[in-house]
Amino acid sequence: MISIVILGTGNVAKHLFDAFTAQIGTEIIQVYGRSPNALSYFKNHLNTTSDLSNIKEADIYLIAISDDAISAVSKFLAAKKGLIVHTSGSIPMNILPHKHRRGVLYPLQTFTADRKVDFKEIPICIEAENKEDYELLNEVGSTISDKVIQLDSDQRKALHLAAVFANNFTNHMYHIAQEICVQNDTPFELLFPLIKETAAKIQDLTPFIAQTGPACRSDSGTLEKHLTQLKNKKHKKIYTLLSESILKTYGKKL
Amino acid sequence: MISIVILGTGNVAKHLFDAFTAQIGTEIIQVYGRSPNALSYFKNHLNTTSDLSNIKEADIYLIAISDDAISAVSKFLAAKKGLIVHTSGSIPMNILPHKHRRGVLYPLQTFTADRKVDFKEIPICIEAENKEDYELLNEVGSTISDKVIQLDSDQRKALHLAAVFANNFTNHMYHIAQEICVQNDTPFELLFPLIKETAAKIQDLTPFIAQTGPACRSDSGTLEKHLTQLKNKKHKKIYTLLSESILKTYGKKL
Repeated sequence: MISIVILGTGNVAKHLFDAFTAQIGTEIIQVYGRSPNALSYFKNHLNTTSDLSNIKEADIYLIAISDDAISAVSKFLAAKKGLIVHTSGSIPMNILPHKHRRGVLYPLQTFTADRKVDFKEIPICIEAENKEDYELLNEVGSTISDKVIQLDSDQRKALHLAAVFANNFTNHMYHIAQEICVQNDTPFELLFPLIKETAAKIQDLTPFIAQTGPACRSDSGTLEKHLTQLKNKKHKKIYTLLSESILKTYGKKL
Repeated sequence: MISIVILGTGNVAKHLFDAFTAQIGTEIIQVYGRSPNALSYFKNHLNTTSDLSNIKEADIYLIAISDDAISAVSKFLAAKKGLIVHTSGSIPMNILPHKHRRGVLYPLQTFTADRKVDFKEIPICIEAENKEDYELLNEVGSTISDKVIQLDSDQRKALHLAAVFANNFTNHMYHIAQEICVQNDTPFELLFPLIKETAAKIQDLTPFIAQTGPACRSDSGTLEKHLTQLKNKKHKKIYTLLSESILKTYGKKL
């Protein structure tokens, strides 16, 4: 049985806690949270603490807190024998204490409170400094996911940046689409099957081949009409820049 | 049995042809295509023609050709008794011949050759000038889809513009994400579960609530690091503009 202490009380911490407690092979023995209130989610299940000097001995310390705080919190664990692991996409492993066993376990997904996700499908990107720690992280990751993969800090950083485009910016596109629908008294829900198919399509075709629309076929008439339709200046700028980028991608000009 | 002539041989025409021929209640009696070669897909099934003066009498003429050509082709049908219908999102109904029965049947989806879609889920947006023609289009649309909805030309135009953001621009975000992965020797496929969840999430939460990421929480450190990571100038511009737009949406500043 691999013992784990989770440090953090946010969405990633909660989702990891739920995933690990639903499995055998690992045991969460403690959760640390700066604020006692934030610990209420975990209190009924196990030992919690708000005191960093009270952290128990464990095989793995899983730091799931905001990027800015990882370095400071990890220093409190420097005297422990267990493996110190953070869960951030954009932070390199070497921010953790030198001369200590350290690693990364980064679940690549967007976590929202009160929304269940299927952890089995979520890629868990792991990094460590030696074979034994890789094996430990692989064993731990495999209890909750079918896709555990080794990535170094540079690859993980690239993946995190790519995820901003594939998730954050994509979601903002949905937001603008909804604004346009609301302003024109048209149900946004009509776009759901299109949004679903757009996401599904690129699992079979590359996004390069899957691209459609007026910019891709350099249909200047429709591009002009759309710009006239858009009332919001920021939306106009986004429409223009992204259309230019698509035109350039396909080696086309207006 | 409602008889239909399809004018057009592209992806929309083919997908509509496949959907209607799989149903009872409608019969495709002819397909028109400018180029005889493009008609080969339909030839084994029914009468085809490349001559606009040879179009048969039918209850409905379904024009599924490029936007620019709709007006010209529809003029050849002005003497017919049947309902003339185009299938375009961005073109108003009144581009079709005046003093003729006319309407629109717009299936809101992205159609790719050789890729099956479940038509039952695709919203079919219909428009007509009188109750009888609305009923006819509703009957025809309902044979292939569970979601037939009345939208006027302005609403349809707005929906088409919103679809550019939700589909074309979203797909371009996937493309950039893939470029970043490829440049950094990281498998793009790792993003598939994230992309799927991003699309699924907004069916339960609004995109406004679903938004996550550095811009949304005005995390200037990560935003700066990402801009340093991006080598492509166009990607930098897109990252900056979309992050600004997200910051503004959440009333935040750096």
